[in-house]
Order: sequence, then structure tokens, then C-alpha cells
Amino acid sequence: MSIHPIDVILHKRDGLALTDAEIRAFILAIVKRTPRRQLVTDCQIAAFLMAIFLRGLESRELATLTEAMRFSGEVAYTEALNTFAIDKHSTGGVGDKTSLLIAPILAAAGLAHPTSEGVPGIVVPMISGRSLGHTGGTLDKLETIPGFNTQLSFPEMRDVLKQCAAALIGQTPKIVPADRILYALRDHTGTVESPFLITASIMSKKLAEGLNALVLDVKVGSGAFMPTYEKSKLLAELMVETGEASSTRTVALLTAMDEPLGRFSGNWVEVWECVDIMKQRRHPMSTDLIELSNILSGWMLHLAGHAATPEEGAKLSDEILRSGAAYKAWLKIIEAQNGDTTCFEDPAAHHQPTATRTLTAPQSGYLAAMDCKQVGWAVQRLGAGRAKPGDPVSAHAGIEMHAKLGDRLEANQPLITLFSEDPSLLEEPEAMLRETLQITQTPPKLLPLIREIITKIHPPS
Amino acid sequence: MSIHPIDVILHKRDGLALTDAEIRAFILAIVKRTPRRQLVTDCQIAAFLMAIFLRGLESRELATLTEAMRFSGEVAYTEALNTFAIDKHSTGGVGDKTSLLIAPILAAAGLAHPTSEGVPGIVVPMISGRSLGHTGGTLDKLETIPGFNTQLSFPEMRDVLKQCAAALIGQTPKIVPADRILYALRDHTGTVESPFLITASIMSKKLAEGLNALVLDVKVGSGAFMPTYEKSKLLAELMVETGEASSTRTVALLTAMDEPLGRFSGNWVEVWECVDIMKQRRHPMSTDLIELSNILSGWMLHLAGHAATPEEGAKLSDEILRSGAAYKAWLKIIEAQNGDTTCFEDPAAHHQPTATRTLTAPQSGYLAAMDCKQVGWAVQRLGAGRAKPGDPVSAHAGIEMHAKLGDRLEANQPLITLFSEDPSLLEEPEAMLRETLQITQTPPKLLPLIREIITKIHPPS
Repeated sequence: MSIHPIDVILHKRDGLALTDAEIRAFILAIVKRTPRRQLVTDCQIAAFLMAIFLRGLESRELATLTEAMRFSGEVAYTEALNTFAIDKHSTGGVGDKTSLLIAPILAAAGLAHPTSEGVPGIVVPMISGRSLGHTGGTLDKLETIPGFNTQLSFPEMRDVLKQCAAALIGQTPKIVPADRILYALRDHTGTVESPFLITASIMSKKLAEGLNALVLDVKVGSGAFMPTYEKSKLLAELMVETGEASSTRTVALLTAMDEPLGRFSGNWVEVWECVDIMKQRRHPMSTDLIELSNILSGWMLHLAGHAATPEEGAKLSDEILRSGAAYKAWLKIIEAQNGDTTCFEDPAAHHQPTATRTLTAPQSGYLAAMDCKQVGWAVQRLGAGRAKPGDPVSAHAGIEMHAKLGDRLEANQPLITLFSEDPSLLEEPEAMLRETLQITQTPPKLLPLIREIITKIHPPS
Repeated sequence: MSIHPIDVILHKRDGLALTDAEIRAFILAIVKRTPRRQLVTDCQIAAFLMAIFLRGLESRELATLTEAMRFSGEVAYTEALNTFAIDKHSTGGVGDKTSLLIAPILAAAGLAHPTSEGVPGIVVPMISGRSLGHTGGTLDKLETIPGFNTQLSFPEMRDVLKQCAAALIGQTPKIVPADRILYALRDHTGTVESPFLITASIMSKKLAEGLNALVLDVKVGSGAFMPTYEKSKLLAELMVETGEASSTRTVALLTAMDEPLGRFSGNWVEVWECVDIMKQRRHPMSTDLIELSNILSGWMLHLAGHAATPEEGAKLSDEILRSGAAYKAWLKIIEAQNGDTTCFEDPAAHHQPTATRTLTAPQSGYLAAMDCKQVGWAVQRLGAGRAKPGDPVSAHAGIEMHAKLGDRLEANQPLITLFSEDPSLLEEPEAMLRETLQITQTPPKLLPLIREIITKIHPPS
């Protein structure tokens, strides 16, 4: 009995739970259609998405949808390496460069403990995205490294993983094609913000990497994608449930995104910051970045069996960073993907904005609050992000924070430095940043970096 | 401040009541877009329709949507005639040919009482539709009259109204273009059955006729478009509310559609049945048809001020029928629209199916029940209806009922005669009809023809 897309729409519209066969048939129709054989039309997909938006999905439906999307195109077959594959995903933030530290930390651990077959004991098959909206993209940051090639095929990626324990690659049209089609429609039919559709989109792409475990960094606060703490938490819960349903051990951390993470936000400047950390040049403004990276890596090392607890994992992560092993792994990965590592010798010299401006504190007091999303938009307007997919980004645009929330400020003390490759792009971001930075006479109440941990494995300690 | 369609979608998606400006902007974008300027895409419309389906519309939103659709194209400007314009609309049934009686009845009343300007005191600017699905279409029936032209422009229609008090015309692409676009999308995105969208679709087209009053015949029972009594009643209430909101006095009657109305179902056979009635040849099987037509006409005569009560109106309607005035008005209308009235001289002779078959009662008992929708589909399969818009229909296909629900039957007594223009088309409809006609040994409990009246003017007596 064949399943017609219209019936799947009607069932979801009427609030029924879809069968696994219905969900699979709908996703199959999306990717198998041709201009001549419209098995399902864009308008039908749009109606289906709105019905899901308003009716929701049960856990089983969401797991099946995610799985059907995951297998709608090429998958990485990391399983073929016969080792422990793990990755981290962030819902996106400002200055969030933890991936650039976590991949080499985990790779160093994996290289230090090979399997009996000579493969690293941990591999990180990391597929990253580009900057969109107010958030940065790991891929855009990596591409500021001269020669670095993120467009590897899956067989090429597996070769890099065998040799380096981590590979840093970009999306291709062949990976989860169903998501690309759905996302393009969601974007202009008002169905983006569904926690169910977001979960299926994120998790289908991550699970296509072939993971044994996944750690999710779900941002909360003024710079987070989700508008409230509750919605971020629901998203985290749905993603954990969906990952676990596909036999991928999944843990989500709800973490603060109330100010840019670390010292820099942009593209090259973020690589620079991470290289400094890996080379034991820890700038005071990077403290929160190092802490979060160690906590996330700690969970990953724990899930991979390299640490008895996440806390011990975080300690191990910091040791790997301080030992220089992470930096060695980083150089190995970059070289394996054709990157020119000479830029890491003096990363500050490699930073070449043509326009720079520093904002100072208009009065003394405490840095109390900011709309972190607005800070992200300012970074985008400086040229570091893009207005629409496909736009080019500037390698050298970005910002440097000179203070953190809660810091005591003196009048005229530097607050933020803006970088751009076009002097005319400084004005608007400067005004946006001036507007959003709030200075008060009493110290603000600060919230912890890690707000909550969502896990099904054991009570987080 | 310009309104973007995406924001209208988001507001409805989130359960907000849309502003009048938002609704008007959305409908305007639908009809003003061009292939080069996609002010709103089909996919956005599909998402909007699903959001309305699931979130509903408040009375004010529904009235505004209907009005925006009504004025999305040409309107009839019947108001220019300076008389009382009234019409009837049915949600569709099997053998429902009341329009063919009601238009001449009201026209006769209008012609008998001209205004001081010499225009008929009542006019019926009736725009009819074609058969679709299991229900017949007035336009298909009228087009079996040789030469009859239903494709009049609005100025031409007004000329016919001045002369004949009624005009019987078809939809054109210029009338309510927004509905045509919306309906085509609803049909394949699972958003047909929304009482709100059905109301806007029906009422925008009826109100484009420029009416002072409208009587709605909302079918209930196994042959009705709406699946339950409650849903038919909700639709009736929404339509009455919407009509009243646009200053059109609106009354809805919930009427039985548990068996075909009258003697015949088909195209020419239905014209034949009405001509017989207007010529005082009342076949016993036409009793329910005559009763319903008089009740509906009675309400219309009452609303037009020609009868103190709907009941007196029904009596007046029957007098107009029996006096021959309705038949005279009918001939006048048909001639004004180029129809050849010689076919009415011996309508039975004009009926020329090439294949006929009569079903008889398999046993004695009472005709107890049938799925009237299945009877309608059998008529469609005989060739009288169409599988998809644009298909041709047969003039002579149809059925004749020889018994009504509750009638006492003897074994082998004729039950239904099937007519077709293609002998190979008899088999399936015969099986469908055999399957659905139920004969029992005890008389069935019969429901009244008029179930309920929805009106805001005074308690129905």
C-alpha cells in the first residue's frame, strides 16, 4: 500500500501521531522527486511544516523524522573505523570558538590511546556550519587559514581521522539533502522556530557523522538562538531524547551566552585566540572560553571512557591543553587538510584589519549587561558575518572585548575594539555596541557559565 | 508602514488575531503578484492556510478576509439597479436543482412588482458553479439547454436582470481571483475542510454579486459536504455572521441530504424535472424538491418584503409556481441568454441516453437508508459529473429514483433507473447503488426536511 504525502499532511493536521512508514515516505518523496515527477510539492511541504509547527511531534515521531532525514543522503560511515566517534555541537553564539579547542583536545587524547588496529581511540568527525544571522560559523573561521581545505569527501575525511583523530569539514549538498530542502522552505514560511523541526535539522546532520556520543552546547541568555530559557531547555531535552533514540549517547549542557565568549569575536581573531591558548599564552579575557571548552571536552572524554567523571575529564582536558599535545594535534589536523601552519607562528601579525576603533567606558562603574544578540549583529555588520547565505565574509573583521560582565570600569577605559576591512563599516556597529553596553554603579548579579545539564546517563554531579 | 506576508503568517501561526490591514495586505499580495514580483509565494500561502486551519479566525477576521477576497476582482455592481438583489446558495447535494425553480419564482415576483424606475422589484444575480466530486453543478445542468449562454459579462448580466429579474451565469476568472488561487492550493495542501476557509470562499463569491439578502441551504446528512451535523451548523453560523457583517441579510437553513432530492439526478434530467413542475406536471417523486424550493423561496420573498413571514412566502412561492408565472419567467430568462426553449416542449423526448438499466428491489420491505454521497458518486461515474475540473460532463447521464426513504417496497419493484451515454459506464455505478440501498422489514425513522434555521433577524417560527 503506497502512502500519499497528502494523507500524511492530513494526519498531522488532525493531530494524529504519524506512523514511521508515513514519515519515511514523506521524506523519501522530498528527496526522490524530480521537476518532472513532483511526488510532493513545495507547497505541500510548507503545509506539512506548519502542521508540525502547530501540532508538534511525539518522541517516536521526532526520532523517526530525524533518522529519515539523516539517511536521506550520504552518511560518514565513521563506524567503519571501529573506534569511538564523538562530536560536540553548539546552537550558536558570539565568540563561541570552543570547537577549535575541543577538536584538537579530543584528537590528542585519541592519538595518545590508539586501538589495537592502530586507529586513534577517539575520533572527532566534525562537520561545521557557516555564520548565519548574529552567530559565527566554525567553517568561516577555519577558512581564514591559508590553504585549509574543508571540502573533503567522506572517504577523505576517514583518512584524516585515521591519521589525526579529528577532521574539520563543511556541509556538502549530499549530506542530509532533506534538511536543505526543508530549511529553505521553513525560512520563508514562518516555521523556523519549532523545537521539533530544529531538533530534526540539527540532529540529522550530527548523526550523519556516525557518532557513538554527542555533547550539545545549548546556549541560553540574550545571545542565544532560542528566545527563553525554557525553550532552550525544551530543545536540549528533545535533542538528548532524539540522540539517545538512535543509540548515540547524548548529553546537553545549557550554557550562558550573555556576553561574547572569550576575548575575540570574528573569524581569524578567533583562530588567533585559540592558537594562543594552545601555545600556553592564556589571555585573561579567554578565561571563560577555556573553562567552557574544558567542561565540554571533559564530558566528551568521560563519555569516551577516558575519564571516570566529567570533572576528571575537564581536568584531563586542561592537562592536554597545557602539555602542548592539543597544539600538536591541531597542527597535524591543519596540515592534513592542506592548511599553511606558518600563520600560527605570529597570529597577531596575521591579523590585518584596515580599520580599527576602540570604544571606551563613558563613565566609571560596572559592566552590567548587554544584548549579546546585538553584539553579534554588530560583528556581522563589521563584515565578519553574512546577511544571506552565500555572501562572502571578511577574514579580519571582528571585535575584541576588554572587559567582562561584572568587571569594574574606570571612565575612558577601553571597552571594545572594532576591526573591519572597510572603514565605512565601523559607524553602525559602533553605535549598536554603544547602545547596548550598560554600566551601573552597583555590581550586577552574575549567573554561572553552566546553568543545567540534561542527560539520561546518571545524575550530573 | 508596509506589511510583509511573512509577518502575517507568523502572527496567525502564533494564534494572534490579524488586523484588518494585515488581512487586506496578504490578499492584495496574492492577486497583485506577478511571476517576476513574487510578493508572496505559493508556499507562504500554503503555510498561511494551514495556520488558519489550525488556529481559526475570529468573526471580525473572517468578515475582513471575506471582504478582501470579494473585492480582489470584478464585482457585479447589482447595486446600480437600485432594487432588491437576492440569491440562494447551496453547499451542494445530489439531485439538488432548487436553483432552477427558485430563480424563476423570484424573478416572477420581481417582474410582477417593478420599482418606480421600471426595474423588477427583486433581482436574482445568480452565479453558479460546476459539478465537483459527488455533487451536481447548476451550470452543467443549464448548459444542456441548446444555445444557452452562461458566459455573460457583468454589464450583460445587469441588462438581463433589468429585463428578466434573474440571470444565470457562471464564474469567470475575473470574479474573486483570490479564491481561485487559494482554492487550488487548499485542494492539494490538506486545507479544504476548514469552516473558516470554506465560509470565506463561498461568501466572497456570493457577496461579489452585490446582494441585499442571501439564503443559504446548508446540507446535513450522508450526502452533505460537511461530515457531521455539528460541522454543517458551525459553517452555517459562520456564513450567516459573515454575511450580516457585510450588510447582507443572511439566513441559513440546515436541510436534509440523506437521499437524492426529487426524482432525477444528473444534468438534463434535472432541467426536465423542473420544467415539468413549472408546467404543473408534478411527479410524486418531486414532492420533497417542491417543498424545499418553496421554503427557500418563501424565505427569500419574506426577506425581500413580499411576504410577512417565511411561511406566507412559501405559500406565495407555490402560487407563483402553480400560476405558470414562474414558467413564463423561466422562458424569458432562457431566451434572454440565447437558449433554445423548444427543448422544454417535450423534455422527456429531449432526454437521450444510449444506455439505460433499472435496478429493482431484491426483496420486499422498506427503503431504509443509503449513503447519499455514494449515490452522488454513482451519478458522477455514469458520466454526469467530473473526476477533475475541466473534464467534460454527459448531458444525458443520471439516475431516476422510483422510491423515497421510508417507502414500502415489493420485491422486484423498480428502485432506480440508471442513464448513461456509454453502456460500459453502467456496471460500476450499478454495483455502487446496489451496495448502498438498504431495505429493512420495519419502517425507518424519518427526519424532517428542514432541520434547523440559523438567523439573526427573529426567532424562526
